[in-house]
Amino acid sequence: MSLLVIGTLAYDTIETVHDKRDEALGGSAMYFAVAAAPFTSPNLVAVVGTDFQQAHLDDLAERGVGISGVEVAEGKTFRWGGRYEADWNTRHTTFTELNVFEHFDPKVPEEFQSAEFVFLANAHPAIQLKALQQVRGPHFSVADTMNLWIDVALDDLKALLRHVDGLILNDEEARMLTGESNLIQAAQQVMGMGPRYVILKKGEHGAFLLSEDVHFALPAYPVTVVVDPTGAGDSFAGGFMGSIARAGDTDPETMRKAMLYGTVTASFCVQGFSIEDLSRRTLSDIDERYNELLSIVTV
Amino acid sequence: MSLLVIGTLAYDTIETVHDKRDEALGGSAMYFAVAAAPFTSPNLVAVVGTDFQQAHLDDLAERGVGISGVEVAEGKTFRWGGRYEADWNTRHTTFTELNVFEHFDPKVPEEFQSAEFVFLANAHPAIQLKALQQVRGPHFSVADTMNLWIDVALDDLKALLRHVDGLILNDEEARMLTGESNLIQAAQQVMGMGPRYVILKKGEHGAFLLSEDVHFALPAYPVTVVVDPTGAGDSFAGGFMGSIARAGDTDPETMRKAMLYGTVTASFCVQGFSIEDLSRRTLSDIDERYNELLSIVTV
Repeated sequence: MSLLVIGTLAYDTIETVHDKRDEALGGSAMYFAVAAAPFTSPNLVAVVGTDFQQAHLDDLAERGVGISGVEVAEGKTFRWGGRYEADWNTRHTTFTELNVFEHFDPKVPEEFQSAEFVFLANAHPAIQLKALQQVRGPHFSVADTMNLWIDVALDDLKALLRHVDGLILNDEEARMLTGESNLIQAAQQVMGMGPRYVILKKGEHGAFLLSEDVHFALPAYPVTVVVDPTGAGDSFAGGFMGSIARAGDTDPETMRKAMLYGTVTASFCVQGFSIEDLSRRTLSDIDERYNELLSIVTV
Repeated sequence: MSLLVIGTLAYDTIETVHDKRDEALGGSAMYFAVAAAPFTSPNLVAVVGTDFQQAHLDDLAERGVGISGVEVAEGKTFRWGGRYEADWNTRHTTFTELNVFEHFDPKVPEEFQSAEFVFLANAHPAIQLKALQQVRGPHFSVADTMNLWIDVALDDLKALLRHVDGLILNDEEARMLTGESNLIQAAQQVMGMGPRYVILKKGEHGAFLLSEDVHFALPAYPVTVVVDPTGAGDSFAGGFMGSIARAGDTDPETMRKAMLYGTVTASFCVQGFSIEDLSRRTLSDIDERYNELLSIVTV
């Protein structure tokens, strides 16, 4: 069924201890769309500058991504720079140039307004809510967020949480949002703020899903060589939402499987710079690793 | 089938941010035996001083633990003190008094020498090997170790590893022993040192088992209130080895289930000071939580 993502398309500058990339394709919606495309044909609402290469949009379209919601605005595309420490867990933002994203006013095209599955990638929560309100009664909506918004736009975030079905966040964000160090209790508190589903990611330590009818936890896929962790969270969300949209339902079994699919797409993502590894993967590659992960976690 | 543990019985002084206990019952073999007792009747080889309370030995015997291998030596029982930071992950050893354990020369009684399952709790690896060599061809032997021995007795530890079937260690120890930061690669390197099974514990982030025929990973049981993490590793080992001894086999299914049982017994352990919570638990309590954990990890 139809899946809509609202988020960023960007050019990133990424430094790891081993290598560096300039002007690498990035942005939350880029990672999400590439991860979700093997499962379904996601539609995309985003803004780019006039410098965004047409070839990059053409590539998305070839993957089946609906790009009629990508606005080309006068100015430069969003740019972000990050540097990772050797342990991968410490990331320094070296620069952020919002550029055309600074005045992003999401307009969901008429043909996407009946989307049944919606993912609000990380953005100011007021922008996320504005986008969500253009969709007519989606079956399942999930938002991402970050520590910045918990810090500077908490009221807007709380307003958003009353309107989404799920929130996807990492351990640090969960602790910051709730003031609760125990992650299960933090997830329960987040549910008290509105979302019926909380997806809590712990990086290399896996993730868990909490809802009224599902409590499911799993370890990360054991990637032996990490190349670039950028986009891991958005790739997780893409596999998670993509597999749910393909199933067309949010029954407990679909939700559990979606956690595995998200884990798998995130694991491909971190194996290469930018979308280099992830963009090569077919549904057959994904299913193969899904089965491997399933064998690792099955009692 | 018969399970033998060689380790310490101790009195601990434990400080957490919430509370403090003096002269609390502890020691690796104590936690192991209490955790394993609901599954089977483990036999114990250890040394205590003349100050060790007979009531504590009587309690073990009532649980079905074979205590004829507990030597009472002239002097005081091993004592250890630890203090935990609020995050539980940082532990400071406040004192260690080896006392009678300083000259521990393990003597496995004749009636225990045919043990089919053997656990060598944390001790100097030369002592562990000496104990193991008194057992006639056990079916499955597993050793624990710690960073101290990796640091000061590496050759003895490597000699021990050529004689045991499994090694149980935590993430920090695995990285220290192999110099490899990726835990899967570290576990593979440990297998290259001798053990056919590596059980790698990651505290609140769960554990995995690696062998030639099994790769199994699972998250920790979501304990909401941790009271005292002392003995979590030994309680894990007790549930793990106890359930394997009860099954009488090391087939892949038994090994996977044993990882869940170890996770469950460790989760009871950390819910109380010393053995206060763990010692209350029956096999029925354990099975109930096992089924809950199974429901959390089943896709």
